[in-house]
Amino acid sequence: MDPDAIFAARDRLAQHARRTPLLESPFLNEIAGRRVLIKAECLQHTGSFKFRGAWSALTALTAGKRANGVCAVSSGNHAQGVAMAAQMMGVPATIVMPADAPRLKIENTRAYGAEVVLYDRATVDRDALVRQVAEERGQHVILPFDDADVIAGQGTVGLEIAEQAAELGITRAHVLVCCGGGGLTAGIATALHATAPDMRVHPAEPEGFDDVARSLSTGARQMNSVRSGSICDAILTPESGDLTWPIIRDLCGAGAVVSDDMALDAVAAAFQRLKLVVEPGGAVALAAALWALPDGVAADVPVIAVTTGGNVDADIFARALERL
Amino acid sequence: MDPDAIFAARDRLAQHARRTPLLESPFLNEIAGRRVLIKAECLQHTGSFKFRGAWSALTALTAGKRANGVCAVSSGNHAQGVAMAAQMMGVPATIVMPADAPRLKIENTRAYGAEVVLYDRATVDRDALVRQVAEERGQHVILPFDDADVIAGQGTVGLEIAEQAAELGITRAHVLVCCGGGGLTAGIATALHATAPDMRVHPAEPEGFDDVARSLSTGARQMNSVRSGSICDAILTPESGDLTWPIIRDLCGAGAVVSDDMALDAVAAAFQRLKLVVEPGGAVALAAALWALPDGVAADVPVIAVTTGGNVDADIFARALERL
Repeated sequence: MDPDAIFAARDRLAQHARRTPLLESPFLNEIAGRRVLIKAECLQHTGSFKFRGAWSALTALTAGKRANGVCAVSSGNHAQGVAMAAQMMGVPATIVMPADAPRLKIENTRAYGAEVVLYDRATVDRDALVRQVAEERGQHVILPFDDADVIAGQGTVGLEIAEQAAELGITRAHVLVCCGGGGLTAGIATALHATAPDMRVHPAEPEGFDDVARSLSTGARQMNSVRSGSICDAILTPESGDLTWPIIRDLCGAGAVVSDDMALDAVAAAFQRLKLVVEPGGAVALAAALWALPDGVAADVPVIAVTTGGNVDADIFARALERL
Repeated sequence: MDPDAIFAARDRLAQHARRTPLLESPFLNEIAGRRVLIKAECLQHTGSFKFRGAWSALTALTAGKRANGVCAVSSGNHAQGVAMAAQMMGVPATIVMPADAPRLKIENTRAYGAEVVLYDRATVDRDALVRQVAEERGQHVILPFDDADVIAGQGTVGLEIAEQAAELGITRAHVLVCCGGGGLTAGIATALHATAPDMRVHPAEPEGFDDVARSLSTGARQMNSVRSGSICDAILTPESGDLTWPIIRDLCGAGAVVSDDMALDAVAAAFQRLKLVVEPGGAVALAAALWALPDGVAADVPVIAVTTGGNVDADIFARALERL
């Protein structure tokens, strides 16, 4: 991927996306035995990095195409990112969501001004429905990760990491990124390859959903054998994408794999030491930084962990707090 | 107070304190019926704005005085702010704390490298003990609020608010500040008077501890009749200070007063809509912005609320989440 696409996305995102802070806690440094910097992308609009990719894709459309609005399928962070980006741009958005998605997520997506089309997971072909909805309305479908403009938008996180770490005197680091379909991982890897070549990106995944770690260790794209069963719901993607996988393969170091227990402990650590609300799937990289570094991480080199989202239900968060 | 003291403190804090973000949520705007911007000072080092005042006071000392270190009395955020500032400066710190303070706060203060001197609340004269400890060690006492260098450090929050709001096109606003002894309130009021004269500061306090609101409405400094009994432990100060009160009197608009229930609802709102961990005493200004605006707030003018700290125990936070 051409890093110029990420620089262009950054220009389009300026004044619209938040430049999220890079945080640090001496308590977390002590656990890790090295500096751990946290890129707090849970503070992005809608509570996750997904807003960046959505805004990038939306603003890459021609004015004519954009006027009809955009369409996306998601029950989570991508839905809210696309809905808010469209609302800010003043164009319609249609979000296709499973009828059994959490009520709050459906309400939030509607609150961002999107029309929500519900479907029955058991009986409806989701992808066919999205194509039909998009065609009827003449709307462009914004894919969750396998889209060059989306990857470019997520890559702006990498540009910020390079700049913010340099302000702290850090140019060499291992960068851990929570990884589902790999849009954020591929974007950050591309950005850092261009702007901070001594930083190495490692995907971080939940146990049982470590397709990217296995893909990297075997050199061939792998799939997960199950679709559900981890608390890290935001990143339970069946496999990486046709665009994201080659980038990850070429640029990333070994993947980290963490248990649900570690993810919950990282949620608790972020509460206690960073004052951040992080969802379990968004805490996987922090968990890896603290307790499950991947192969190939050099001693004494700082680790940077991206906390990718904070859209967690109160009962799950309370479960994490009980671990303190 | 001369605003130049705040500009000088800003120079000393540069590269050491965090420039915390100014956040916004469409959901909170809808509750308030106007724009609500949140200055997330809970993301400051040690989880509260107190680090700023501590660093400002420490760096205002001559090198000779500083070498012996500093001393403070506090069971909470001021203790951690002074301890971490001293640690970063490489000088000793002694923190006098009640023996029945929460274990975690004592451990945290020690973890920041401070020597903790415990005393029995029932039998020991705290202020006499601090004087004795400071004299024995030749250490300078950093007061929690009634110290010009501390106020100047807290005032840097105001300079950032003026700049960050201007970037959003906002120059006129009501600024709500959680208020205990009034160091932060006085500092922000002084900073905004100098740099954003169309912004008006209003202190926000818990019910029963509204001495500053009553002081403003009567024109004479009042005291609280009780010392405990609110969940907002960080700001249960008996009265404002000899330095802070005249500044507040001259520069601030009417005070807001919120119930403990509102404070907990604001903690929950910050969790859900901002992805921030805020302690009840640090959420009082946000609660006021959403549900208890003080007299004199003009319609359609944005409100800026400072969330001052995030050092909340897990069980209290869980109580707030149950309200969602």
